[in-house]
Amino acid sequence: MNDTLVTVVGNVATNVEYRDSPTGGMARFRFAVTPRRWDRQSGTWLDGRTSFYTVLAWRALAVNLAGSVSVGEPLLIHGRLRVHEEEREGKRRTFVDIEAMAVGHDLARGTSAFRRVAKAEPNLTVRPPETREQDQESAPSPAPAPSPVPVS
Amino acid sequence: MNDTLVTVVGNVATNVEYRDSPTGGMARFRFAVTPRRWDRQSGTWLDGRTSFYTVLAWRALAVNLAGSVSVGEPLLIHGRLRVHEEEREGKRRTFVDIEAMAVGHDLARGTSAFRRVAKAEPNLTVRPPETREQDQESAPSPAPAPSPVPVS
Amino acid sequence: MNDTLVTVVGNVATNVEYRDSPTGGMARFRFAVTPRRWDRQSGTWLDGRTSFYTVLAWRALAVNLAGSVSVGEPLLIHGRLRVHEEEREGKRRTFVDIEAMAVGHDLARGTSAFRRVAKAEPNLTVRPPETREQDQESAPSPAPAPSPVPVS
Amino acid sequence: MNDTLVTVVGNVATNVEYRDSPTGGMARFRFAVTPRRWDRQSGTWLDGRTSFYTVLAWRALAVNLAGSVSVGEPLLIHGRLRVHEEEREGKRRTFVDIEAMAVGHDLARGTSAFRRVAKAEPNLTVRPPETREQDQESAPSPAPAPSPVPVS
Repeated sequence: MNDTLVTVVGNVATNVEYRDSPTGGMARFRFAVTPRRWDRQSGTWLDGRTSFYTVLAWRALAVNLAGSVSVGEPLLIHGRLRVHEEEREGKRRTFVDIEAMAVGHDLARGTSAFRRVAKAEPNLTVRPPETREQDQESAPSPAPAPSPVPVS
Repeated sequence: MNDTLVTVVGNVATNVEYRDSPTGGMARFRFAVTPRRWDRQSGTWLDGRTSFYTVLAWRALAVNLAGSVSVGEPLLIHGRLRVHEEEREGKRRTFVDIEAMAVGHDLARGTSAFRRVAKAEPNLTVRPPETREQDQESAPSPAPAPSPVPVS
Repeated sequence: MNDTLVTVVGNVATNVEYRDSPTGGMARFRFAVTPRRWDRQSGTWLDGRTSFYTVLAWRALAVNLAGSVSVGEPLLIHGRLRVHEEEREGKRRTFVDIEAMAVGHDLARGTSAFRRVAKAEPNLTVRPPETREQDQESAPSPAPAPSPVPVS
Repeated sequence: MNDTLVTVVGNVATNVEYRDSPTGGMARFRFAVTPRRWDRQSGTWLDGRTSFYTVLAWRALAVNLAGSVSVGEPLLIHGRLRVHEEEREGKRRTFVDIEAMAVGHDLARGTSAFRRVAKAEPNLTVRPPETREQDQESAPSPAPAPSPVPVS
């Protein structure tokens, strides 16, 4: 409730750091979003200022990010936005994180060969949502079979 | 202005139809989004009702969708939502379209091998935004080089 | 999970119908969203095609909508998007609903005098989220007191 | 293009500062968003960490914010998210801004009496979008008259 969801479209700015842990993997990288606007005078698109985000992911998404994503690649990322301030070495700093729920290579920029990963984590089915919201992304979830497709 | 942007996470429900035309390619497919919620009683995730959308894409994105995406694959799609009513064969029908701006295979479900596609459409740089908003996606746009990456 | 959240900015197209029930009130109205784009040739903003949505709300939000909102007024609405098909009188029809989580009069179009409504539904605090997601909006929630405001 | 749109639901954390200028008014305030999640153990909603944003608005929206909004009030805000770093007094700082496009008092928390403000800025009609995206909010825009309302 009151979660702030956001979708960012941009480019991977640092390597994906992956760390394993008893509770599952975690991935982290910086992401650059550069808006562009049409400039009437010059008749071209001009780049605006770049916004940087720290992207965090857990479990299956973390593993697949580590195995699929390189610096400079174009992605779209959907997740929860968090802004937090912390004291580090006596200085107050602001951090802007996106806890990723879904991430993909942007097909507006290139092609992608996808391979579904089998999930073998049956015990996750009994995790309630409150253990950690990030768990939700990796709960075993065979693609829903939308059999009766209304075509319009 | 007042465009309704939306991000949907789900599965491709029909083949991608691709059509070429003098003004560039166009792709179209149906997309299924099934929300899930945690059920306390059963201790499991339950599927909600599936929502279906018609996804439309143009130019480079259309070409890459046709070349990369198959029925059943998990995607995330970011674009403009449009609801419109039309008379067809004497019946009034409602259509729910997403004009895609960015689309990717969902890495929460599998891995993806990405290959950037070189763009050779220099004439697009001089298209103003109002010719067709969809043009914006395929305007030649080398990935912005976010050289000074603030790492936090 | 996989909920599709959307924010629409537009105008109230029908009266707010309010219905009371043992489980709390429910409100319903139609909402019109008209995108506009800049037309270079004419040097003016042109209206695009209007999208219509059915907006649903529950409990406190439903009561306040019924008491505060009239046809034609400009609102912004944040909620869950659902598309569903149903047979009615032998015809298959498509419905596009937004289950509202937060709604407000758009201050880009006018002024608003706000009055906080005290909530006296203590029993809601013990409702788990899965009973009905709409409950979440009306859970007793004194405004968080963000005492240490980092001003930047 | 590549603008990051976001909707935040929370509370006003500082007074609205309003500044007039030759090109129109500008308003600025801090905004607090506190997510909540259901805690199974305690059977209650727990507050998460608060995220703070700086909200910026221009022209009509700025004027109406200054006249309608007080500290502590619940709002929903839809706008463009920007993250930028700057050197101030020898220190590098991160700023998280939302350039507001639409703002309203959250009717999930109270009632609101709305009064439409007549707009008398005819010269804005000929401003192209690229002069400043914020102009778009205040372009003269009588509420679209969605006459043929499809009721479903």
